Amino acid sequence: MTAPNRNALWARTFADELARTGIDAVCIAPGSRSTPLTEAFDRHDDIETFSHLDERSAAYFALGRARRTGEVTPIVCTSGTAAANFHPAVIEASQARVPMLVLTADRPPELRDSGANQTVDQEKLYGDAVRWYKDMPEPEATDRKLRSLRTTAARAVSEATGVDAGPVHLNFPFRKPLEPTYVEGDVPADLDSEALDGRSGSRPYVKTTAGAPELSDDHLRKLADDLAVDRGLVVAGPADPPGFNAEAVAAFAHATGFPVVVDPLSGLRFGGHTRTTTVLGGYDAYLDERVTADWADPEVVVRIGASPTSKALRKYLARTDARQYLVDPTGRWREAEFGATDLVEAEPSVLAWRLSQLIRNRPDESWNALWTDAEDAYWDLVDDETDAFEGRVAADVADLAPEPSTLFVSNSMPVRDLDRFARPSTKSRTVLGNRGASGIDGIVSSALGAGSAATDHLTLLTGDLAYYHDMNGLLALGRLGVDATIVLVNNDGGGIFHMLPIEEYEPPFTDQFKTPHGLDFAATEDLYDLSFASVDPDDFRDAYAESVATDGTDVIEVRTDAESSHRVRERIAERAIERLSESD
Amino acid sequence: MTAPNRNALWARTFADELARTGIDAVCIAPGSRSTPLTEAFDRHDDIETFSHLDERSAAYFALGRARRTGEVTPIVCTSGTAAANFHPAVIEASQARVPMLVLTADRPPELRDSGANQTVDQEKLYGDAVRWYKDMPEPEATDRKLRSLRTTAARAVSEATGVDAGPVHLNFPFRKPLEPTYVEGDVPADLDSEALDGRSGSRPYVKTTAGAPELSDDHLRKLADDLAVDRGLVVAGPADPPGFNAEAVAAFAHATGFPVVVDPLSGLRFGGHTRTTTVLGGYDAYLDERVTADWADPEVVVRIGASPTSKALRKYLARTDARQYLVDPTGRWREAEFGATDLVEAEPSVLAWRLSQLIRNRPDESWNALWTDAEDAYWDLVDDETDAFEGRVAADVADLAPEPSTLFVSNSMPVRDLDRFARPSTKSRTVLGNRGASGIDGIVSSALGAGSAATDHLTLLTGDLAYYHDMNGLLALGRLGVDATIVLVNNDGGGIFHMLPIEEYEPPFTDQFKTPHGLDFAATEDLYDLSFASVDPDDFRDAYAESVATDGTDVIEVRTDAESSHRVRERIAERAIERLSESD
Repeated sequence: MTAPNRNALWARTFADELARTGIDAVCIAPGSRSTPLTEAFDRHDDIETFSHLDERSAAYFALGRARRTGEVTPIVCTSGTAAANFHPAVIEASQARVPMLVLTADRPPELRDSGANQTVDQEKLYGDAVRWYKDMPEPEATDRKLRSLRTTAARAVSEATGVDAGPVHLNFPFRKPLEPTYVEGDVPADLDSEALDGRSGSRPYVKTTAGAPELSDDHLRKLADDLAVDRGLVVAGPADPPGFNAEAVAAFAHATGFPVVVDPLSGLRFGGHTRTTTVLGGYDAYLDERVTADWADPEVVVRIGASPTSKALRKYLARTDARQYLVDPTGRWREAEFGATDLVEAEPSVLAWRLSQLIRNRPDESWNALWTDAEDAYWDLVDDETDAFEGRVAADVADLAPEPSTLFVSNSMPVRDLDRFARPSTKSRTVLGNRGASGIDGIVSSALGAGSAATDHLTLLTGDLAYYHDMNGLLALGRLGVDATIVLVNNDGGGIFHMLPIEEYEPPFTDQFKTPHGLDFAATEDLYDLSFASVDPDDFRDAYAESVATDGTDVIEVRTDAESSHRVRERIAERAIERLSESD
Repeated sequence: MTAPNRNALWARTFADELARTGIDAVCIAPGSRSTPLTEAFDRHDDIETFSHLDERSAAYFALGRARRTGEVTPIVCTSGTAAANFHPAVIEASQARVPMLVLTADRPPELRDSGANQTVDQEKLYGDAVRWYKDMPEPEATDRKLRSLRTTAARAVSEATGVDAGPVHLNFPFRKPLEPTYVEGDVPADLDSEALDGRSGSRPYVKTTAGAPELSDDHLRKLADDLAVDRGLVVAGPADPPGFNAEAVAAFAHATGFPVVVDPLSGLRFGGHTRTTTVLGGYDAYLDERVTADWADPEVVVRIGASPTSKALRKYLARTDARQYLVDPTGRWREAEFGATDLVEAEPSVLAWRLSQLIRNRPDESWNALWTDAEDAYWDLVDDETDAFEGRVAADVADLAPEPSTLFVSNSMPVRDLDRFARPSTKSRTVLGNRGASGIDGIVSSALGAGSAATDHLTLLTGDLAYYHDMNGLLALGRLGVDATIVLVNNDGGGIFHMLPIEEYEPPFTDQFKTPHGLDFAATEDLYDLSFASVDPDDFRDAYAESVATDGTDVIEVRTDAESSHRVRERIAERAIERLSESD
């Protein structure tokens, strides 16, 4: 490692060590105080840099990449409010267990709390939302400090990517000169070679071999015994990166004979395993009390992943008498109806494999028929619906996206529509969304970040408010060379509020909740590197099919009416409930 | 106070009490969990609501209003990452002592840390950046709880607006129903009338009478004696809202005979007081060691406000031998060269008045002439410069803005250009900027927020990166009815980096620092309610004069070259230094 001064040496050593742990990309927002880090990443041959002008978008872009890859893409910013702009994405990463490494530059200690320009209190800026915070020492070219720096790099990555993955924040003080100018005597000639150059070859200074919680053989056998029942259910909520092993879950489903309820963000709604496994996707409509009142309760429910998107599903689980197992590798709690009876601290895919070796249930045909009949009836009704509405757009995307595809789906209505109207299929789709804190902020950047790491086609399904909230994120299209088909369901405001009782109160409904904005998003065509077309809902299928067949980025705006779309959703659900409660 | 349920009663009582303390406006971002607060503010006759779709912009808008008025405009958001989007503006408010009241909605306690949707840890979300944090109790219609709520409202406003003004965060848990639906028994009929309806008439429940630190008579006389010297200087840095009393500072300057160095954000660079007071504005160019080497040092320097924008000024003050008084009403420290010798805890304008009664210095003509000669020479050189450059745009705005005017100036180059090229004048301008943390985020919204509270003409002077960073803030133009002339100095990237040594390093200079983006901002005309025109620097004066004479919002884009503009700045400074060091 050569460097003209201690700051450059410090930052280059850190970048070198990150690259040795496998980091191959970094998101950088320009700034002066962070110059040593920026320069070090920019010059590293094995690290790709993504330059962002809005730190909020930068952090969500890195989050989206990490969702897609399961690996860290560090984010770099200068001192001051820049770091606070990372905060929303840091919270999402924390809630959703997405690896993240935040590298903020800071003034040296004597300038903190002194009135110095662009100097704010960055210590523990993200509070308890990070897995690890470290105020870095001041750069100095000594053997021990360089060894500590290399060790910190390794620890930061392992803390961010472990079983309880999430954000890690390292705060780097730098004093001038910040640029790589020669400073006499700053870098002594007699440094220890491993401190200076790292381990021989490309080995990291500290190699972390991560473990994950597994049950003892005794506990495993006990659990297998408890799962030897007739009526069971697997519920797969939104997956933590890098997702569940679909084969393991399928093997478990076969061994137990339990059908699998698959959240759209579980990674299990689509794929080859659906050919031989009973996966359920229509539950949000039919798990109504009028339908399930006469159903037998499941005896056990095995839940993996985060709390499901579907409120109807959560309420159903709360009112069953089942023994409910939450399987969570971190041992933390994600079940806010408080109906669960057991918390099992284990890595879900590994546990599924192990249990599938021990269990040989005979499937309960009447139990399974309850679910498959409901599914069949429901999806027939969806197919029969002839009115164009927002849910159909989500269904069309799931149906027509190329194979394989990455689908990023916004919060608010899009994820709910995908949940309710995207029929499970054997198609190959990686479906991602920000379901940790379920915000509509940073959606564009999260999607494009995921796309930057994907080799398949990217579709973003978003509403107008999420599109507006992170329009700045569109800059990544031309500037960072990411392509996507962006499906913009534009109902001019907060359509989701039509689902809530506040809809009945006018005022304040229109002005404060629905908030129509009248924005003409066609103008984003000239601002960003994209082609924009507005289509009628009836023409969406054709427009989408055409877009995915061509290169470059298309925004397909589908103008919809939130209220009438909501009435179609209600109508389909009512019909399903009618039909299914009749058939009992 | 009538209300159909406890949540509505709680929120309406809180809104009622805020209105009684004088709150007349609130910024609201739509969301479900915050429904009770939103509904309560929306229905209050004396509170104007500003609806924002991006919480980051909402918070900066409220910040800008508070800068202009000195009063609080509360901000309301739902639970989750929405609250984290407020964080950058919260930090700016904290650093710059701007009143702010953050009202976040939260899930009820049992749903925290449970995996419930859109539920994050909001407790002390902004760390030490707030003056006061309170996790509100759950709404309940009892006399004591309602009295506590009214008292909290009063305390929150007084904490946010006191001598050490800044952000206050109240976190409100609500459980369903959130909308104003009738709940039997939720609001008993026998509540105490003052708890329920507040004090009689429009009196607040608790009226706060705020004090401010003043020196004892003994300390004041001692200080007056110490200021009885020949050579002194008043340095006015960026002012805390509501700004300095110009007459008081002028009276102090007359009594002491000291010239006044006026930062562009001090509120003292423009106005009637400049007719009779020696105010200095060209210091950033001429306070070079080559010029001041032969100058006598000041004996005392009296500094008010925050640390000045000008680095040359800060370095000059650090190398003088003067006794340097920091006058600060909070007693906190804002002087990062650590040259100051005295901290005086007193309200600056009051202290200036009181001292001006006690001091009768005879002005030292040679001392004053050093400064006025430098000023005259410098401004002549600025006038002589015939090349169009970015600094001229700032000078033109200061010159041509209507009287009175509000000028909001972005960080990075615009505030530096205003500092260096806007000659002090008698014109009536309120100059505002975000100099607490000096970020380029939230500039558009801060300006439009200031404009929403101003009755005079608003000009925003911004660079392209700040314009891009908060383009979302432009939605306030049509949606919230704010008008402005927006002067967009577009040099396609981070021009300020040409001032830094990193300019010499390529790579990474262009890709990571200068970051040209090529954005065609003309597209913002169709997105937002504005007219957009791009002009040559030479045509700027005419375009600006025309814009300020007409209604509606114009964006005047001035395409400039960052590097050549920087060379003009350097040339003028070099000439000033040459001329002034010759004349010694």
